[in-house]
Amino acid sequence: MITCNVGLIGLGTIGSGVVKILQKNADLLGKRTGVKVVLKKACDLRVEEGKKLGLRDEQLTNNFDDLVNDPDIHVIIELIGGYSPAKEFILKALQHQKHVVTANKAVIAKYGKEIFAEAQRNNVEIAFEAAVGGCIPIIKTIRESYAADTIQSIYGILNGTTNYILTQMGEGKNYADALKAAQKLGFAEADPSFDVEGKDAAQKLIILARLAFNADISEDILTEGITHITKQDLKNAQDLGYCIKLLGITKKENNSIEIRVHPTMIPVHHELASVRDELNAIYLISENTTKSMLYGKGAGQLPTATVVIGDVVDIAKGKKEVLYQEKVPIKDLSTIQSRYYLRFTVVDRPGVLAQLSKILGDNRISISGVQQKEVDKATVPVVIITHQAVEADIKKGIQEIDALEIVKEKTAVIRIEDIQ
Amino acid sequence: MITCNVGLIGLGTIGSGVVKILQKNADLLGKRTGVKVVLKKACDLRVEEGKKLGLRDEQLTNNFDDLVNDPDIHVIIELIGGYSPAKEFILKALQHQKHVVTANKAVIAKYGKEIFAEAQRNNVEIAFEAAVGGCIPIIKTIRESYAADTIQSIYGILNGTTNYILTQMGEGKNYADALKAAQKLGFAEADPSFDVEGKDAAQKLIILARLAFNADISEDILTEGITHITKQDLKNAQDLGYCIKLLGITKKENNSIEIRVHPTMIPVHHELASVRDELNAIYLISENTTKSMLYGKGAGQLPTATVVIGDVVDIAKGKKEVLYQEKVPIKDLSTIQSRYYLRFTVVDRPGVLAQLSKILGDNRISISGVQQKEVDKATVPVVIITHQAVEADIKKGIQEIDALEIVKEKTAVIRIEDIQ
Repeated sequence: MITCNVGLIGLGTIGSGVVKILQKNADLLGKRTGVKVVLKKACDLRVEEGKKLGLRDEQLTNNFDDLVNDPDIHVIIELIGGYSPAKEFILKALQHQKHVVTANKAVIAKYGKEIFAEAQRNNVEIAFEAAVGGCIPIIKTIRESYAADTIQSIYGILNGTTNYILTQMGEGKNYADALKAAQKLGFAEADPSFDVEGKDAAQKLIILARLAFNADISEDILTEGITHITKQDLKNAQDLGYCIKLLGITKKENNSIEIRVHPTMIPVHHELASVRDELNAIYLISENTTKSMLYGKGAGQLPTATVVIGDVVDIAKGKKEVLYQEKVPIKDLSTIQSRYYLRFTVVDRPGVLAQLSKILGDNRISISGVQQKEVDKATVPVVIITHQAVEADIKKGIQEIDALEIVKEKTAVIRIEDIQ
Repeated sequence: MITCNVGLIGLGTIGSGVVKILQKNADLLGKRTGVKVVLKKACDLRVEEGKKLGLRDEQLTNNFDDLVNDPDIHVIIELIGGYSPAKEFILKALQHQKHVVTANKAVIAKYGKEIFAEAQRNNVEIAFEAAVGGCIPIIKTIRESYAADTIQSIYGILNGTTNYILTQMGEGKNYADALKAAQKLGFAEADPSFDVEGKDAAQKLIILARLAFNADISEDILTEGITHITKQDLKNAQDLGYCIKLLGITKKENNSIEIRVHPTMIPVHHELASVRDELNAIYLISENTTKSMLYGKGAGQLPTATVVIGDVVDIAKGKKEVLYQEKVPIKDLSTIQSRYYLRFTVVDRPGVLAQLSKILGDNRISISGVQQKEVDKATVPVVIITHQAVEADIKKGIQEIDALEIVKEKTAVIRIEDIQ
């Protein structure tokens, strides 16, 4: 039996989960894996939290240096989240030749390159399965199971909050009520902007793309949230045989990488469409395995803590990852092609559709379908579905249209992906 | 860079896939994982197959001893399938201190205990990710990602042939035509009995249950295939809000294990219901991660070969698995409880329903719904859905009913699982 002493920083939700699972399952874990994981010391400013969890005084500290300076500690688990001081703690731990396990997507997305290099310099490991998709073992799958494969694209429902909100809106709730329901269930923060604006999903997508394509990807990617989506858009999508999901999408084609997070219309029969409520899922298209999907709880105390401990065991058993990154150009998003759902809010007057379609045509945007329902209002919604069009053309066309006097609201644009 | 020399036995579909992937991706694999996988020698009676793949003469042999006696070979990949001589080859390789990677579900399901013990005795690894679910990394997920979790139940669509046939039947084909279509696409063998009788799924389920519950499970489990399912059953299921899947089901409750493979009615909105055609999926319910699902190609040359190589890399990087099995009693299946779909074929005569329901009632089987459509035939189908009933009671009740003169065909019995 290998003994692995861990130091844990952060006794919040996930940190407490790690403590609880180790208290309950350490024996079974040892029998199964040959690794005895011992919580040597936990660090939190609120040491009382640790006492409530049943930790002994000598297991508790409010000074991170007590962890890095303890020669018996092999692995440090960072669960305080956020950029700072998490980044400094992680680097310090690595510099003290401690392996690090973290669930911190922000710090890995933004400072991954620096952190990986520091780990390599000190010949220790940095593991972060819990940073993406909660309990979904996507990091392990990409790195280990599909190491001999060539991943071509990833489509991920990477944020539970927005998936829950969109599911509720698909059932007829408006955005505000759906958000309130999510907050009530603890799926959304009081200030939900980080989730609903797609930033959380973007951080996770960056981590996935970096691994899948062995590419050096920065944090600056196209990120659109769901706040402009209306329940009418969801209804229109349903009528057209689609549903709307906030997707993280990344593809590698012709040695360039496309990466973006935005609300996306996908066919209602696609496997990702069946991922409802707060669940997450990651759909991979690759050369050898063609298509596969991993699905599960993307957040939560015990799901996340479980894979954190999985990372600790892997490290204790001697797992070594290799850092390999190429420079791969990121595709200019104005050149991407897609079909688009466009919802115009226009005055109800003859000739309006002709005006819209002329501007679209002038911008090389070809119309595949139009939907206009009779409504008893001064403004009417007109929905146009395009054929494949170029993002830059759409941008320009919509800008021209939104400047028209007949257009009464900013046009809603949702990209359509006919995922294979 | 670690160099890992492999010996491969079996240049059939998957073996050729391993060769092709190594020819194409070995460099990338090396950069990503730090392991250079070198195909030192391949063994097949048909050495010509190896030459067609571009292997050099000195890489080819028709004598397995050339693999085990080669001191430079670290890992032997067994891809000949079946019980014998695969078992003998695997044991011999282990005895020669070679690690073994196999995709052979039959031999692992039946002789797993003996093979694991031999590997342990010789301090080498036996890996078999490809034996269950093709490219789906379910073995790794259970062993590594969820090592700190307690799995409570597994529901698996573990056989692509039967899932394809049932998908086709759900769209209106009868069994014979659906089977023919599957054969045409290469999803079913000329003699499909191993798949359609559920035996393939049973072998895979045994392997999963053994790992998930650390239990010593033999090959003798309840196994029912799909040959008695009619397209009318699929239609009836749809009308009731269900679909029919061939599921491998295993649960651990009160320290006993339930394990069985049979056609199962599951709610049409359940995630497993969206797994169509030849795809496989494994749905896990566990204490910490609550629910998760892994989905992908369950067979095929490149999907399977990819995870075979993943196993090789893991071993080359020093991964060591621990053998831990408890004696856990297997539940007597006559005691399990379920809801049931019963389709009776009876003469169209007054009093028939009364006769059926009296016998069911006498056997403590309570009726939740009845469906009888007008048909212009001498015999009519009567569908009865039961409340929770005990398997032994159902067996006895159906036996009594099938002995009645009014009953013209063996009654079809399909268990219903309302999976959470």
